[in-house]
Amino acid sequence: MTTSFFRSRWVDAPDGVEELDPNQLAPGFRAGGAHCGLKGGGRTDVGLVVCDAEEMTSGMVLTRNASAAAPIRICRDEVDRGDVRAAVVNSGNANAETGEQGLADARAMCERTAAELGLNASQVAVAETGTIGVPLPVDAVLAGISDAASTLSEQGGGAFSDAILTTDRWPKRCTLRAGGVTLSAQAKGAGMIEPNMATMLCFVQTDAVVEDPDALLRTAGDASFNRITVDGQMSTNDTVLLQASGKAGQPLPEGLLEAVLMQLAIEIVRDGEGAVRTGRIEVTGAATQAEAERVARAIANSPLVKTALFGRDPNWGRIAQAAGAALAGEDLDELGAENIDAAELGADVPEAEIGLRLNRGDHSAHVWFSDLGYEYVKLNAEYTT
Amino acid sequence: MTTSFFRSRWVDAPDGVEELDPNQLAPGFRAGGAHCGLKGGGRTDVGLVVCDAEEMTSGMVLTRNASAAAPIRICRDEVDRGDVRAAVVNSGNANAETGEQGLADARAMCERTAAELGLNASQVAVAETGTIGVPLPVDAVLAGISDAASTLSEQGGGAFSDAILTTDRWPKRCTLRAGGVTLSAQAKGAGMIEPNMATMLCFVQTDAVVEDPDALLRTAGDASFNRITVDGQMSTNDTVLLQASGKAGQPLPEGLLEAVLMQLAIEIVRDGEGAVRTGRIEVTGAATQAEAERVARAIANSPLVKTALFGRDPNWGRIAQAAGAALAGEDLDELGAENIDAAELGADVPEAEIGLRLNRGDHSAHVWFSDLGYEYVKLNAEYTT
Repeated sequence: MTTSFFRSRWVDAPDGVEELDPNQLAPGFRAGGAHCGLKGGGRTDVGLVVCDAEEMTSGMVLTRNASAAAPIRICRDEVDRGDVRAAVVNSGNANAETGEQGLADARAMCERTAAELGLNASQVAVAETGTIGVPLPVDAVLAGISDAASTLSEQGGGAFSDAILTTDRWPKRCTLRAGGVTLSAQAKGAGMIEPNMATMLCFVQTDAVVEDPDALLRTAGDASFNRITVDGQMSTNDTVLLQASGKAGQPLPEGLLEAVLMQLAIEIVRDGEGAVRTGRIEVTGAATQAEAERVARAIANSPLVKTALFGRDPNWGRIAQAAGAALAGEDLDELGAENIDAAELGADVPEAEIGLRLNRGDHSAHVWFSDLGYEYVKLNAEYTT
Repeated sequence: MTTSFFRSRWVDAPDGVEELDPNQLAPGFRAGGAHCGLKGGGRTDVGLVVCDAEEMTSGMVLTRNASAAAPIRICRDEVDRGDVRAAVVNSGNANAETGEQGLADARAMCERTAAELGLNASQVAVAETGTIGVPLPVDAVLAGISDAASTLSEQGGGAFSDAILTTDRWPKRCTLRAGGVTLSAQAKGAGMIEPNMATMLCFVQTDAVVEDPDALLRTAGDASFNRITVDGQMSTNDTVLLQASGKAGQPLPEGLLEAVLMQLAIEIVRDGEGAVRTGRIEVTGAATQAEAERVARAIANSPLVKTALFGRDPNWGRIAQAAGAALAGEDLDELGAENIDAAELGADVPEAEIGLRLNRGDHSAHVWFSDLGYEYVKLNAEYTT
């Protein structure tokens, strides 16, 4: 079955998957959103999602950036990651590099949400995205949380999804049914757009029974979000949250979460700042797994490869150069056109597949990446704080 | 004394240094150049420099890129690095990823040079820069070597300097006198310009007595060429050669070579592809030297910092983000405007000084870098192989 959601050549839609209205959340969940003034134009900038089942499970993956934002620190230190009944989000302010006040503000967001929903604050995850280093107008945000709480509904997927967008060109969300369970997901992220408009966020709700959501999320995240790069820049606020209400009484079909996260991850790359084309580099024949990863990431982050993708230049020399630089100090076998598939760099395809075969062992790795064009420079240079 | 050569705010001209015509080589050296057709427009693309003193010393630093070009492999494996009487160069073809034929071609260049000059082939270093993966038209190059040999003169610094340029916007060269010795130098490099037009090359001649040129070059190179980045891309062909004729009978004044290499390195950054402004990031207060280096390079290579330099955006959040990403998995003290000097990112100065103070120890490191603007994308995307 074809779907409009699974539209990347790199993602196989799981068997028998059915696509529902993305406003419709998985059973057992409600969501909503409001405008509190962090973003202009009356856009939704505060959102809530809540699981109404008390016997639920949850898992979280958070950024490893050493300059982690206040909401990341609250999630890490004060939230019960296995019992996240609700999440509160805002877009427009990252609440990063905001000191003790930032921590207090993020904590207050959890507390207000808990009060509105009859939960403990430790059951509420908080995620924020937007400008770094600007104090959060916390009173407005708290009022927005109360407003958002009054809009909660099972049809609130769209409002919640809107509440996490910053400069994304399109929303990234889906609701899918397969194997007797439903899964809804909302993501945002387009690299670091505008000064400090950072962050990849992803929220997943399901009525499946998920026994070890942290482990499942980590495995699926490693195969998707950890394999993409827009500009090689790790955000201060990245967050992925999985909540499972268990209402369907059966487990997730194998591969469903992985496929959803992979499609969402590729959407984020496709929507990379100023991006026109997406690439995937697959490195095979590496001596170790770490070497395969290092070479693939070096190629994916090389501005020369990224401008070649933008300019449709099937230039294998740049791939050889980036690979050699990643293995500096070693002696690589001569690489030539027979080792490097770069033709799709120059082809008229939106998703270009690139291959590099080393002759050093049997390890492989792949990374998805966006191109580098004029719009990237424009977005990042012409906006002045 | 002020000179036109030492014009960076970051380089102190050594005491009493005097600037000579850059065509004039250090005593004991002759150089010349010719056109063999690798570059268009009749431009000089083959060059020779030779030391006429038999009792000379020399040292070389070569790229560590694992995809090293043929001339690098010849220099590494077949040249007597302590007795490099002559160097032969071409520009327009890097002779990289060219297999056994490339090695044979580079070796033939050394042999022809040796024959023209009455030397052994092991006394001739070879350096090439230009397109990767294209066979060298070796007959034309060998004829060019003979032509260049017929032009050798003590005033050949300009011709030799021209012979190493690719898409540099200006030549980088000097002849200086200080402490009774003369030092002449020629460099090229502007990042990887045009598909695969790679490479940093630098040649230094002096009549000083230099006892351990390899060690001296390594120390001075670590403080200069190893501290610059245009696009984070290590070339397949980077070469620095120091030749000392000893004719002056005295050593190099302390700091002269370091200052020359530093100024040349900064010239290369200034002439980075499409570059408008140059930055220097100094990281202090790091826990270890490796940490200081890692953070400084992460900031210097961050496309967000580089576009901020281009767009004059004094945006300290991007510096905090890049530093945090470089220290992923650790917990960094909150960084704020008090830890980050980013004002010059936004100031009307061609050379912007940026500082980051960590509170983790007493190690520090600095890196020079170019900005990232539209011209970088244009140069790298619009030229199609």
